[in-house]
This record gives sequence, structure tokens and C-alpha cells, in this order.
Amino acid sequence: MKLAILFGGSSFEHEISIVSAITLKKVLKKSELSFIFVDANRDFYLIDSASMTSKYFSSGGYKKSKKLLLKQGGFFTEGLLGSKRVPFDTLLNLIHGRDGEDGKIASMMSFFGIPFISPRMEASTLSYNKLYTKLLAQSLGVKTVPYQLLRTTDSRDIPLQYPVIIKPVRLGSSIGVSIVKEASSLDYALDVAFEFDSEVIIEPFIEGVKEYNQAGCYTDRWELSLIEEPHKEEFLDFEKKYMDFSRDGQVLSADIPDTLASSIQESFKKVYGSLFGGSIIRCDFFVVEGEVLLNEINPIPGSMANYLFEEFEVMLYRLSQHLPKEQDIIIGYDYIHSIQSAKGKV
Amino acid sequence: MKLAILFGGSSFEHEISIVSAITLKKVLKKSELSFIFVDANRDFYLIDSASMTSKYFSSGGYKKSKKLLLKQGGFFTEGLLGSKRVPFDTLLNLIHGRDGEDGKIASMMSFFGIPFISPRMEASTLSYNKLYTKLLAQSLGVKTVPYQLLRTTDSRDIPLQYPVIIKPVRLGSSIGVSIVKEASSLDYALDVAFEFDSEVIIEPFIEGVKEYNQAGCYTDRWELSLIEEPHKEEFLDFEKKYMDFSRDGQVLSADIPDTLASSIQESFKKVYGSLFGGSIIRCDFFVVEGEVLLNEINPIPGSMANYLFEEFEVMLYRLSQHLPKEQDIIIGYDYIHSIQSAKGKV
Repeated sequence: MKLAILFGGSSFEHEISIVSAITLKKVLKKSELSFIFVDANRDFYLIDSASMTSKYFSSGGYKKSKKLLLKQGGFFTEGLLGSKRVPFDTLLNLIHGRDGEDGKIASMMSFFGIPFISPRMEASTLSYNKLYTKLLAQSLGVKTVPYQLLRTTDSRDIPLQYPVIIKPVRLGSSIGVSIVKEASSLDYALDVAFEFDSEVIIEPFIEGVKEYNQAGCYTDRWELSLIEEPHKEEFLDFEKKYMDFSRDGQVLSADIPDTLASSIQESFKKVYGSLFGGSIIRCDFFVVEGEVLLNEINPIPGSMANYLFEEFEVMLYRLSQHLPKEQDIIIGYDYIHSIQSAKGKV
Repeated sequence: MKLAILFGGSSFEHEISIVSAITLKKVLKKSELSFIFVDANRDFYLIDSASMTSKYFSSGGYKKSKKLLLKQGGFFTEGLLGSKRVPFDTLLNLIHGRDGEDGKIASMMSFFGIPFISPRMEASTLSYNKLYTKLLAQSLGVKTVPYQLLRTTDSRDIPLQYPVIIKPVRLGSSIGVSIVKEASSLDYALDVAFEFDSEVIIEPFIEGVKEYNQAGCYTDRWELSLIEEPHKEEFLDFEKKYMDFSRDGQVLSADIPDTLASSIQESFKKVYGSLFGGSIIRCDFFVVEGEVLLNEINPIPGSMANYLFEEFEVMLYRLSQHLPKEQDIIIGYDYIHSIQSAKGKV
């Protein structure tokens, strides 16, 4: 399989996207890989496989790489002898956070007719935004943690039962997230979160809650990962999460009863539905008093959660064979013709 | 104001987008206009103002126009002397239906740093999809007509009170919409709708319902149009809607009590919120038993609903001065540096 990995992006998670891409280079041993980097200015660069080190990017060395243009059908290098397409069959969108997870890349790949793995536009909008994720889950009959929405312009004088967790509505990787144990710390936590977004959600922070991660996709069948009980700290700060994105070794399955495992799997399938076709996502669930609650959808999980799958690369290949197709729209000019002839203009 | 009008697109409403653009050429008398056409293959063309006739497109004549490339900062013509930017301050996205209303153009304009008038990505996803519009309205406390969702794979054996109206979830301009008066016609209507989408919604068809249209935007203040009671046929078929898109004369305000007018205005403001910042939308409301119900959001109304505003062009100018700004994200490589130095690699 010829696979292009798209990474970087104008995102707070730019750096961890680089780490993800370097990790996947190690994991995907059988594929022919191209690497396309989106820098802070949103210029595209074709990166040699040998240059795929974090230093090449942090030092600005990447600027010596070939620039690419996005046009119908692919990414192109431009030279004196004309334009040359970067050869790949499918693109893997590995941009975490803005640009990658918010639907911009998905939109652009659809528009320019490039087959790609990642959530499509609608799925991106609904999973990138924690409020819309709640609305989606609700409409699908999947329970979530209760929440309150707060906007910059709203009064902060709200009755809360502490501890609570504050999250910017639109970011991943715990950026801007705080746990607030008492009213006196609320203001500061809100200030931090509002630096990243104009809307935040406030949820009860459930001490010692059981958390389980389920990843998967739908190819011609459901392909679900093992269920992991992630190593728990209060929550992962950016640096720990960063290390988390470079995981490539397989993990152990959570030691849970079969009934719980199937509830988690069923919830995953409901969320994924047909909406997430073409993507590998990871859902993080809480189990509270025996009930499975959707905590978050990770539309583009770190290093694609490869470590949760037994045969990640083979599954990726199968997924690339079962991507959603855009509906064909044939454009004729029948109405214009009929109006022209009614007006005697033809 | 230098304004680029983007129209066409790979959309069932390609032709009416051409009609919209030709209409706006007549309406926008004080602005310097550029016209950018997206053809069925999604190639971009710069169209001379003098060539803005429907025949130029229906005959394929547009292919003689200059092709454009989309790059950081704008649309460019490429020539022997290098690349030249099409000069405009703001782009008006006038692509109806797919590409324009579904969020693709919004995504691309954001990514390539082009100031534009139209709903942003999130607003596009939520308004292009009639199911998500319902979820949004619900979350905002705006009432809608009750509905049932049906997918291609669902059983059609559903209890319904006729008449009902069947709508594909994702299209505008009444395409694929049918009114079904009895159970025996249901199958055919569903077949028609499913030709356009894999999901449809079924709503009660309310005979003789009062319908009111409210358009508007937020600049540094609310700028609401007059409220129109649209000329009622059972519903507008494609050809009538098509003529509707070429309206440019001002219409009369609906003759309704002030209290009803303010309820409609309040509902409009709730829906528009901050989500639709940067766009001029039209909301279509039903009034049933004194209650205002949101029927549909038109994220890019035909000819921008110019005929509902007294000073459309001046408002457009003000809006172009108050477009939402993307958050600045400064990308450093602090974490990569700190990890490199921890590993002794620096």
C-alpha cells in the first residue's frame, strides 16, 4: 500500500502530530510511505523518510524540503518540467487538533478528490466540539457525563458541586483542562480554559472513576481493538500525553467481565455508526455505577491508537479499501437551457 | 469594497448558484466585483464580468477563462512571469448546496487565510444537515416541527399520520422533497428521497401553515431583514425555486402583529448566536397555534436574500469589516526541545 501521512498543522498539537508521524513510520513496516508536513504557515512540504526526526522540524530544517501544491487529484511538486504528483493511494490524516480534527483537512481532501483516512466533515465537527459530542450521543441513546456550558459572556456565579473538571469545548490533549476542587479556584481555571476557547464545559469530576478506551473502525465488518484501562493519573498533562503519542508496543486488555466489555463495544458501534465511516477513532468511556458513559471521542487518536490493535497495518489496508464514496453529481444545464429557450435566447 | 463572488460547485444546485451570482452582479452596484467559478470538476476559473451570462456556463464557454490555483492568501493565476493574486478584500461564498453549504468552502477559506462571508465550518455542518439543525435548535431552546429519522437500512413499516413531508437530510432547494398524502405513496417518495441521501426525515405536513422568513446577520449590531410571508404554493419545486433565486426587487413586509414579529426575531437571534458569525442566513419559521417553530436554516440563501434588506450592499460591507477571526496559534518546539535535551540529543 502506498500511504501518505499528513501531519503537523496550525494546531496546539502540532508537536505531538510530529511525534505521532515518527511513531507510525516505525509501526507501518510493509507500506510505502510518503510524508507530507503542514507547517505553522500551513504550507505543505514533502519530507524524505530519512529526515523524519523531531529535530528536522524543530530546527526549521524542513524548509529545505520540496514545497507542495494541493490541486485536483493530489499534492504536486512544481518544477521546470511541469507538475508532478506525489504518488500514493490513500492519505492518512494524522493532524491532531485544529486543521486535522476540526474538519478542514477532511473538507479539502473531499474537495480535491484525494482518498483519505480520517473522520469526514460532519463527524469532525461533531467530535471536535465537546458540546456537539454530547448532543450527538444523546440523539443516539448513548449516555454521557452531565455537563454545563459556559460562554465568556456568561455569569460565573453558578452553583456547582466540587470537584469539577473544566474543559475548553474545542481542544484535545488536555490543553486548557483543569480540575477545580473548590470555589476559590474556579475563576483561575476558567481564565485558563477561556484562553483556548470562547466556550467551556463544566462536568463533575468523578474521583477514581473507571475509564476504558475502545478504538476501532468499520471496513466490511466491525474491527474493534482490545479495551484498555489507561494508566491513571489525575489526568494526563501535556507532557505525559506527549509521551503517550509515541506508543507503539501492544498493551494488555483490561481485566473486565464480558458483559461490561460488550456494553462498551455496543456503545462504540452506536457512536461510530455510519457517521465515522473511513476513520479509526478511539472512544473513552467512563463506567459509573455499572453504566457506560461516553467521555470523549478521539477522532484522530495519538499514533492512531496502533498499540490497541493486533494487526494494525493490515486493518489500515482493509479500511483504505472501504472508504466512503462521495455521491456522484452530474451537472447538466437543463434548467438554464429551458429558461433560455423560454426567453427566446437560444 | 473589492469583493470576489464564488459560485458554481459540485452541487445539485450548481445552476441556481449561477443564477444567484448573475443576480448579485445586478444588485451590487458600488463594489468592485471579481467572479470565481467552480465547475463540475471543481476547477476554479476567473470569469470576466462581461461574461457573466448563464449561456457562458451552459455552453462550456467558461473553459476559455483563466484557471486559478488556491494557495495561501488567495486565488492565483499562473503565468510565465509568475503567480498573480486575484485582488479582492473579501470573498462571498455563493455556492448553494454541496461544497458551499456543507462546510468545504468555509474550511478551505479558513485554511488558506482568505476572509470570507458565509457560515463557518461548524455552522455549515449543523445547518446543512436537517437532523443536526433539529439537535441544535433543541439545545438552544428553539422549537421545531416534530420529526422521525429514517435510514436506507431501516424498516419502512412505520406508523404515520398523513399527510407527511419527506426530506433528504442534507439537501436544500426542495430537491428530493415530497408531500405524501397516503400510505400507498410512501414507498415511492422514500425512493426518490433516498436517491439523494442515505438519511431522510419525515415530518407532519401542516396544511395551510403560516410561514415567515427572516434573514439577517450580526456585524457590530444585529441587522435583521424585514419579515416576509413567502408566496405559498404547496411547496416550491425546483424550477419555481430557480426563478426565486433571481429575485432582486424589494418585497413587502408581512402583515403580522408586533408581538409575533418580535418572537420571530428573537428566535432568529438565538439560532444565529455566535455560531453563524460572518454569514448572512435566512431562517424559515412556521407559526403553529401561536408558537414559532424553526423549519429550516438557509445558510446561503438564494441571491443572499438581498431583496429582504433595505441597504443590502452597505450591510455586506459592514459584515466584511466584522468577520470572525481565527485564533492565533504560535507554534514553538518547546516540548520537542525539552525531550531532545532529556535524551541528550541536543
